[in-house]
Amino acid sequence: MLIAQNIKLSRVLLDTWKVDVIMIISCTAAYFVREYLISYHFQISTIIPTVLGTAIAFFIGFNNNQAYDRWWEARKIWGAIVNDSRSLARNLINFVEDEETAKRMVCRHISFIYALKANLRNTVDEIYTKYLTEFDKLEVGKHSNKHNAILNIQAMELQKLYKENKIDGFKFMEINEMLVKLTDSMGGCERIKNTIFPTTYSYLTKVFIWLFVVTFTLVISQDMGYWSIFMGWLIGFVFVSTQINGMRLVNPFNINASGLPLNNIARTIEINLLQMLNEEDIPEPVRPINDEYIL
Amino acid sequence: MLIAQNIKLSRVLLDTWKVDVIMIISCTAAYFVREYLISYHFQISTIIPTVLGTAIAFFIGFNNNQAYDRWWEARKIWGAIVNDSRSLARNLINFVEDEETAKRMVCRHISFIYALKANLRNTVDEIYTKYLTEFDKLEVGKHSNKHNAILNIQAMELQKLYKENKIDGFKFMEINEMLVKLTDSMGGCERIKNTIFPTTYSYLTKVFIWLFVVTFTLVISQDMGYWSIFMGWLIGFVFVSTQINGMRLVNPFNINASGLPLNNIARTIEINLLQMLNEEDIPEPVRPINDEYIL
Amino acid sequence: MLIAQNIKLSRVLLDTWKVDVIMIISCTAAYFVREYLISYHFQISTIIPTVLGTAIAFFIGFNNNQAYDRWWEARKIWGAIVNDSRSLARNLINFVEDEETAKRMVCRHISFIYALKANLRNTVDEIYTKYLTEFDKLEVGKHSNKHNAILNIQAMELQKLYKENKIDGFKFMEINEMLVKLTDSMGGCERIKNTIFPTTYSYLTKVFIWLFVVTFTLVISQDMGYWSIFMGWLIGFVFVSTQINGMRLVNPFNINASGLPLNNIARTIEINLLQMLNEEDIPEPVRPINDEYIL
Amino acid sequence: MLIAQNIKLSRVLLDTWKVDVIMIISCTAAYFVREYLISYHFQISTIIPTVLGTAIAFFIGFNNNQAYDRWWEARKIWGAIVNDSRSLARNLINFVEDEETAKRMVCRHISFIYALKANLRNTVDEIYTKYLTEFDKLEVGKHSNKHNAILNIQAMELQKLYKENKIDGFKFMEINEMLVKLTDSMGGCERIKNTIFPTTYSYLTKVFIWLFVVTFTLVISQDMGYWSIFMGWLIGFVFVSTQINGMRLVNPFNINASGLPLNNIARTIEINLLQMLNEEDIPEPVRPINDEYIL
Amino acid sequence: MLIAQNIKLSRVLLDTWKVDVIMIISCTAAYFVREYLISYHFQISTIIPTVLGTAIAFFIGFNNNQAYDRWWEARKIWGAIVNDSRSLARNLINFVEDEETAKRMVCRHISFIYALKANLRNTVDEIYTKYLTEFDKLEVGKHSNKHNAILNIQAMELQKLYKENKIDGFKFMEINEMLVKLTDSMGGCERIKNTIFPTTYSYLTKVFIWLFVVTFTLVISQDMGYWSIFMGWLIGFVFVSTQINGMRLVNPFNINASGLPLNNIARTIEINLLQMLNEEDIPEPVRPINDEYIL
Repeated sequence: MLIAQNIKLSRVLLDTWKVDVIMIISCTAAYFVREYLISYHFQISTIIPTVLGTAIAFFIGFNNNQAYDRWWEARKIWGAIVNDSRSLARNLINFVEDEETAKRMVCRHISFIYALKANLRNTVDEIYTKYLTEFDKLEVGKHSNKHNAILNIQAMELQKLYKENKIDGFKFMEINEMLVKLTDSMGGCERIKNTIFPTTYSYLTKVFIWLFVVTFTLVISQDMGYWSIFMGWLIGFVFVSTQINGMRLVNPFNINASGLPLNNIARTIEINLLQMLNEEDIPEPVRPINDEYIL
Repeated sequence: MLIAQNIKLSRVLLDTWKVDVIMIISCTAAYFVREYLISYHFQISTIIPTVLGTAIAFFIGFNNNQAYDRWWEARKIWGAIVNDSRSLARNLINFVEDEETAKRMVCRHISFIYALKANLRNTVDEIYTKYLTEFDKLEVGKHSNKHNAILNIQAMELQKLYKENKIDGFKFMEINEMLVKLTDSMGGCERIKNTIFPTTYSYLTKVFIWLFVVTFTLVISQDMGYWSIFMGWLIGFVFVSTQINGMRLVNPFNINASGLPLNNIARTIEINLLQMLNEEDIPEPVRPINDEYIL
Repeated sequence: MLIAQNIKLSRVLLDTWKVDVIMIISCTAAYFVREYLISYHFQISTIIPTVLGTAIAFFIGFNNNQAYDRWWEARKIWGAIVNDSRSLARNLINFVEDEETAKRMVCRHISFIYALKANLRNTVDEIYTKYLTEFDKLEVGKHSNKHNAILNIQAMELQKLYKENKIDGFKFMEINEMLVKLTDSMGGCERIKNTIFPTTYSYLTKVFIWLFVVTFTLVISQDMGYWSIFMGWLIGFVFVSTQINGMRLVNPFNINASGLPLNNIARTIEINLLQMLNEEDIPEPVRPINDEYIL
Repeated sequence: MLIAQNIKLSRVLLDTWKVDVIMIISCTAAYFVREYLISYHFQISTIIPTVLGTAIAFFIGFNNNQAYDRWWEARKIWGAIVNDSRSLARNLINFVEDEETAKRMVCRHISFIYALKANLRNTVDEIYTKYLTEFDKLEVGKHSNKHNAILNIQAMELQKLYKENKIDGFKFMEINEMLVKLTDSMGGCERIKNTIFPTTYSYLTKVFIWLFVVTFTLVISQDMGYWSIFMGWLIGFVFVSTQINGMRLVNPFNINASGLPLNNIARTIEINLLQMLNEEDIPEPVRPINDEYIL
Repeated sequence: MLIAQNIKLSRVLLDTWKVDVIMIISCTAAYFVREYLISYHFQISTIIPTVLGTAIAFFIGFNNNQAYDRWWEARKIWGAIVNDSRSLARNLINFVEDEETAKRMVCRHISFIYALKANLRNTVDEIYTKYLTEFDKLEVGKHSNKHNAILNIQAMELQKLYKENKIDGFKFMEINEMLVKLTDSMGGCERIKNTIFPTTYSYLTKVFIWLFVVTFTLVISQDMGYWSIFMGWLIGFVFVSTQINGMRLVNPFNINASGLPLNNIARTIEINLLQMLNEEDIPEPVRPINDEYIL
């Protein structure tokens, strides 16, 4: 997540340089084609880039809206994970009459958070094992879906608490509800990660922007001569940077400056839960990188 | 679901070739009509295709938004099915004091997933019977709505567990809630499948695009001569491909490259549940076809 | 609900013929006024219909979006009714230890569905009495809101089951929750039926379309002579048909080709529930009319 | 809520006459300034009102969408109040084994509805006291928030019923849930009433419409002479009436033709609940005023 | 929150003066560049600012919509806090058979509200300690997240009430549900506060508005001479003020005229809860500042 108020224009140019080169070549070609071929035969109607502009505006608008919605939905889900983590820990610590098990379950929950994060980001960090018992590690090792496996152990332990009368039916229900909600959040993240935004939208947008830039340059070169190459690229850049900017948000779990700050959120949960357990050894919050973004 | 980053333009042309032919014939006719009839009598106002363009932009935008919403809602429902399947299995395996029945119910649930998928896609695969007992198959055979019948058997077995004190009231409630949620998801899928997107919208859009292409060609042929046939088709193609692309998403359960990857999702559930049962014989995840899409 | 892929253009013309006549008269008048009065004094600026076009596009877009939302919300509510009907029946049949009462309550629920449908469509069919006992009919007769009265009898019978220990507190809660959800769906339908879409929106849209058609014809008649009458009507038709098409969806419970297929949905529920009761005498699904639409 | 299909144009003119006068004066001034000052020095570019038109279209569209959303949300909340009132009454009447207290609580609930309505509309009608006991009136008198006070008495009485074993824990929960939901609806209404729609939006819209009308008149007066005064006003009227029309919906609890028909909804609840109590003396439904609107 | 119907134009100018100066300098530069350099070589096409206008309209529209959504979501969350505060207090006061503890918990809840407000606004007011016991203050002092710490004490006390049989399981659940909901609202606020609206959107919007103003001035200066400087700024001002106005809503917890009136809402909760406790000493509602806005 970007935190700097002003990003550098150079960063945007860096993001789009490949497309910029293609656009400048196309614009130059369009200029020469019109100047030495078309201009002797016919005029190019202004309505062509105007109408194309409308189509592109719709496309880019649609892509940006849907991308932002995915990004914000992912953020909401992680917000829910924060909330449910706190409620789960509060319930375990205050309502369970077996302090040791309660503490073990809270720690195991921190492990769940880190396992989920690692999975969503396709990283292989093993931080999550830090909060697991030896038995847990063995059990989790058997499953391909690590975070789901941790939830299962939580349920197993919950059943044990219930059978040993450390909690009653009402508390059992309350805590189990939290596990159900965490399963929903976990599945929601996987859904966003695994569902690819319909490729045809971003592909057609690219094709149409290119078509627009070419016809636009053809039209304005009738007035502006070789300056049309520069203006063609400039307007194309406006559209391209908007499109690329939006598409950045489509995969909110990627590890880049536009992605969600999962490191930061996971650490916040860790700190909150350890403080609730009255632990002494609390880790530091995650620091921004270059005061520019946070991961 | 498409997974390739770049689709081939040829695929888009293949999707639209019929409409392309109609458009090229219409543009050619428009060109000749204007050249040899209209041009001697009057000018055609540029404002006509401009205003039509606005109307079409609204139509296509509306259709695409609603289509994408249906597609994404369907995806969300299947996401909920994944979540509830995991929670149901976790509850059954950990909380029921009758391991055999629990296992039977988890297997029957896998069968529910496959029966629902077959129904939504109008296929007749019998995979779902694999996880049913002989009694189940007989019972399910009596109903036209197979997946609903399976839920009924689950409820029957749940009642038996309760009466035999294998679960108490609290657990009974938790598990029954899962059946209620699965009924909601199942009904949500049927709603999207059975509710036809208002036909007038897609029909009128087609008529208006045609009208636009014709008036557009009439207008630009005043400047561009026979090149207007090509440009008329090109701009028409932009609108038509957008419209067709959007309408692909309207029926998310169809078995095509744009449809939801139900095979993949159902298999994920199957793998998760079998691992939770500590089964040895776990099937492979579903593989993409041509690295291009996944069903 | 329309089910045919292609509707006939003649149907659209039939829907709009009154407005078409008014538009053609207005366009003709506009043509003559400009030709024999205005043309000697001043030019009419193209910007006038262009700006009006923008205003109208907003209006029609807004109306269509809100109308579709009402229609889709109504569809969702009926989807929820289907789901809750199945869950209610499943709970009653499997969890109640008094088969006869359970069956009576499931039948009474079918009656609730038909009573609600009749109320929403302002019809007086008495199908719903078929599934009621004599006592029920008497009791329901006292109320102006028939469907609400049926829910009350269900609650009364539920209380009796509870007192006679045919269900325990947990089951009581689960079944009562279903009655609460059905009350919500029933109220949601009444809300959509009774809340009139703000009249000013559709009224002003009509006035502005007329204004647009007149100024549009005035402007293009400067280029196109009497052909402007035809083009003025054609563009007006595009806007009018879109507007009328959208307004069709505003009242989703009306009995017409665009309305929701309540007959069909109610019958689906009836079939599902009777099959769950192992009844022999199952009615046929509702058939489409002319393969064109379904009621 | 307006119920007449056609509102009179005169009503719209009446609503906007002040702005109309300002616009006509501005247009006239613009005409003379251009005719006798500007026309000797330079042309005014058509692009100025065109671009302003885009900005205004966004503003008005945004205002209308948000206003309608507030109105529809308010309607949904009152729909929820209707639903929860019925469910509450059904639960009280059927599940509580103390008929008298149940009846008293249902009546007190009608009083809650009227107290909430009076508060939302800032009226001082005392209808709500009709359904209160002497004790209630005394208690409610101590609070500034009357409707919240009534809910508290309901909770007090519920506790008494529970302690006296007239209801068990399950029923206690079900009924208390209804009180929680009613608290949510009540708070939702207060939120919409007390949150002022950001003033800057409506203010800037007014300023920009005025700016648009002036530049528009300046531009078209180059073609149309003094007729530009009329056309300038006409187009301005289109924007102004849309804006004013939308802003009407922003405060849905105001007592005017566009507000929600709270009288009607409250009466519907009253009738439903009294019929459920088998009362003889049922009041009449609320009648529309002039067949034009309903309050 | 602004409450005055009309804000002063001077306030808007004050908000934008820095950008206004930059725009006037840019417009002047553009005028001179065109007049003394470009005009001898080529015409600048009108289509350039037209197309840019479309892109900017999308950007500003997108930013405003998302900003308003954040603001309204934050308002909804605080609405939920109001509701849950009332329900929590009602439950505690009426259902707990230990008046003193109930009262202590209600007071502690007021403290929670003030602690949450102080955190969201980054202020250090210590009002919240007023309603805490000495033990509470000590306990809360150990945590970095004060409001979460208060919720933990509430849970601890709830557990004590349950163990001492001052509440039964059903009531325990109801009250604990309220704590869960308050955790969700608290987390929702933190999410909105900590998630920075994607910086690239507001940055690119600024760059594109500047680009638009320059090309717009270049184009209209062909018609209007040095008056183009004034008109260029005027149109730029329309876009800039809209953009700045929208961005004001992005951080709804900031202490300024556009922020949410948290002082007012917190005080409303305080008054409601103290009245429910039959306290004598009720504080005054928060007064607006200059009759212009409320904090």
